[in-house]
Amino acid sequence: MTARVLVVDDVEPNVRLLEAKLQHEYYTVITAFSGEQAIIRAQTDNPDVILLDVMMPGLDGFETCKRLKEDPRTRHIPVVMVTALDQRQDRIKGLSVGADDFLSKPIDDVALLARVRSLSRFKGVTDELRNREAVGKKFGVIDNATSRDNGQGARVLILEDDAKRSERLRRTLETEQRPMLMEEANSLGPDGQASVELMVVSTSGVAFDGLRLAAHIRSQSVTRNLPILAIVDQDDRQLSLRALELGVNDIISRPIDEEELLARVRTLIKRNRYVESLRSNVDQSMEKAVTDQLTGLHNRRYMESQLSGLLERAKRGGAPVSVLIADIDHFKRVNDLFGHDAGDDVIRQFSERLASNFRPRDLACRFGGEEFVVIMPETLPEDAMIIAERLRVSIATEPFYIGRNRDQIDITCSVGVAVGSQLDDRPDRLLKRADEALYSAKQCGRNRVMAQAA
Amino acid sequence: MTARVLVVDDVEPNVRLLEAKLQHEYYTVITAFSGEQAIIRAQTDNPDVILLDVMMPGLDGFETCKRLKEDPRTRHIPVVMVTALDQRQDRIKGLSVGADDFLSKPIDDVALLARVRSLSRFKGVTDELRNREAVGKKFGVIDNATSRDNGQGARVLILEDDAKRSERLRRTLETEQRPMLMEEANSLGPDGQASVELMVVSTSGVAFDGLRLAAHIRSQSVTRNLPILAIVDQDDRQLSLRALELGVNDIISRPIDEEELLARVRTLIKRNRYVESLRSNVDQSMEKAVTDQLTGLHNRRYMESQLSGLLERAKRGGAPVSVLIADIDHFKRVNDLFGHDAGDDVIRQFSERLASNFRPRDLACRFGGEEFVVIMPETLPEDAMIIAERLRVSIATEPFYIGRNRDQIDITCSVGVAVGSQLDDRPDRLLKRADEALYSAKQCGRNRVMAQAA
Repeated sequence: MTARVLVVDDVEPNVRLLEAKLQHEYYTVITAFSGEQAIIRAQTDNPDVILLDVMMPGLDGFETCKRLKEDPRTRHIPVVMVTALDQRQDRIKGLSVGADDFLSKPIDDVALLARVRSLSRFKGVTDELRNREAVGKKFGVIDNATSRDNGQGARVLILEDDAKRSERLRRTLETEQRPMLMEEANSLGPDGQASVELMVVSTSGVAFDGLRLAAHIRSQSVTRNLPILAIVDQDDRQLSLRALELGVNDIISRPIDEEELLARVRTLIKRNRYVESLRSNVDQSMEKAVTDQLTGLHNRRYMESQLSGLLERAKRGGAPVSVLIADIDHFKRVNDLFGHDAGDDVIRQFSERLASNFRPRDLACRFGGEEFVVIMPETLPEDAMIIAERLRVSIATEPFYIGRNRDQIDITCSVGVAVGSQLDDRPDRLLKRADEALYSAKQCGRNRVMAQAA
Repeated sequence: MTARVLVVDDVEPNVRLLEAKLQHEYYTVITAFSGEQAIIRAQTDNPDVILLDVMMPGLDGFETCKRLKEDPRTRHIPVVMVTALDQRQDRIKGLSVGADDFLSKPIDDVALLARVRSLSRFKGVTDELRNREAVGKKFGVIDNATSRDNGQGARVLILEDDAKRSERLRRTLETEQRPMLMEEANSLGPDGQASVELMVVSTSGVAFDGLRLAAHIRSQSVTRNLPILAIVDQDDRQLSLRALELGVNDIISRPIDEEELLARVRTLIKRNRYVESLRSNVDQSMEKAVTDQLTGLHNRRYMESQLSGLLERAKRGGAPVSVLIADIDHFKRVNDLFGHDAGDDVIRQFSERLASNFRPRDLACRFGGEEFVVIMPETLPEDAMIIAERLRVSIATEPFYIGRNRDQIDITCSVGVAVGSQLDDRPDRLLKRADEALYSAKQCGRNRVMAQAA
């Protein structure tokens, strides 16, 4: 698949050469002739890959890369640094400022294209998630804070059948990560295995075909997003290219340079954690749509969607569902006498007692204002009454604390209970019955529980 | 990149042959020997591509494809039908039940792999969006309804420099779509161009290189997700493969079969609309996190995030921000005398008057219960008072309607106004001042507007 590549070099003929090579393969090329220009173009054009020369006057490649990787607008763009020679020190330095890979001049065309293809491939999903996150930021449900991660402390699984080699890998990785060998992974169980953040796969194994293993990992839904670093024998160029094509994320050659291994592993882990953070930002922002901001309880929207499902199940022969509505007595007086902040204190403490009084399967929600609803699946009427009474007592017997001085006030609540019949109940009918019971409780003098039969 | 392919054929040697070819290229293969089995495997294993034999006893390929494309669990999986010969009728019938493409036996290995690669490539983004949507469904912020779309009525842009050919294309497409030629597109402006849902690109143009154009469209952020159907000259196999590799979504050969063209266009549009619906489901669910369910106004969470931003800007020398808090007088009486449903009616009508009384740049929110907040950017104190008074009058002069009988009741509200100073204001301080003004308005007898100086 084609992509947009930003080529950065202060020497114009170098830029033109790379541009021609890439355009010949139908890539779209944008150019910059200094580090400063590169940063601006990266911010405005969101290229899929950046090819960045190391030796430039002004901002050199290292400094440019560092700034690109520190900027939330550009940190997701893969950077390949182009060095004059295959200098070990340059490689280590580049990786440590966040470069994703290296090419040395004169540039090997096939390697260049394989790298660009491989790096730009993962950007599609990242861009999609970034766009969704941007929507969440616009609505204010995702905040703008960006977490800095050092790419360390990850569970790394080593797949290498030579005992000596795997032991050496483990010792190297142990300085920064939590490596383990295949045998240990088997004893972890599915949860432990799900915590793996990176796989290091040797492609020169005798007991298994590393390439096939990598392809298999990449094609399974549960491990599809797991980064893979492949170890290849020196100069096995064909295998390296094939591995990149199959979806391996990065390559390191034998003999393994320990510092380079650590740096590549850090980069892969950082990149993956970044994508995971985008995912969880989007998912959490959807959860906010069903969470009450003041109390952290679920809100009315969530309660209604869950109650519908439970009543459906009850109708198809499942266990009955009970609900209660609890309302704080004379709440308006709290607001009028002590102010809204005191009112909020009471709502929060009420929520805490409410939540701690129910079973894990029950669903406690703030319905709005000073009204709360608890859904109790598979609960018989007598049990629902006992639970509701326990709530009433827990509110009435201990004082509430308001304001900075934690002044004590006494609070009571009235509770209405209703049980869903197995026949025809809809959420609104069931809630209405509970509401009628609550009304009776208020009429009878408050601080009490009343039930309403179906 | 590797992928998981489901191979379906009732003749076992056929399955094994395809399996061997795909495994040789490091694809993971799962198999099924009937349409019924294929449907179950597709549901449980979520393959990236399905290769489906047409001629099978029991459910044949057409019926299997139809069911896969009707099932929300499997409709996103690309299906390639495998026919004994290149039968036109089979092709049309297959496309009309939703197949994404065709291969005829004996299967051309290169074409097979190019197709599998091309189709599985787009599934990564779709799967990512489906997973996010699944989270939204779990929380009940995205409903389970699936829209059926016929893939028609889309704006289709034709890029063909031969006038006769382009006119013929337009006439064919006009029966189901809204086609237009390049010249017309230029006169549309950016908004019109953004409404294009598909591009049909001729690769045999003289005035432009169709392949390069397709690659360019694919590499730009704004058109990255736009489907492209490429027209190639008969038997230009190399060009077809290259086009698929560059990210073209589908190919049709000359001489163009009109029915086939319409069917392929419908399939591409349906697929794209499906992905767009996933996107908008996720985005809308994030918007729900900042929307009040009863009134459709923004909620407190959104108001606070926006107010922070506006105060920041005011601090840096921007225009001052005014806020008002409006509270319905004696609202509790409405609930007590007429029930909660009547209370909800009042809240809703209050919101409508509130929203219609403000300017587009103002932000009207439900703060909670019977309290509303309006943020007025770039508004001076005197103007804020005029606007607040206008709101008070619009509430007090017209009756509200409650219940099924639309009984009339009179409602008034009290309003507190505060203006952000350019110095040090934080959202909570500004809101507190408005709240104090509101308290004064209540103390002074309600149904009035009061302001609080900074």
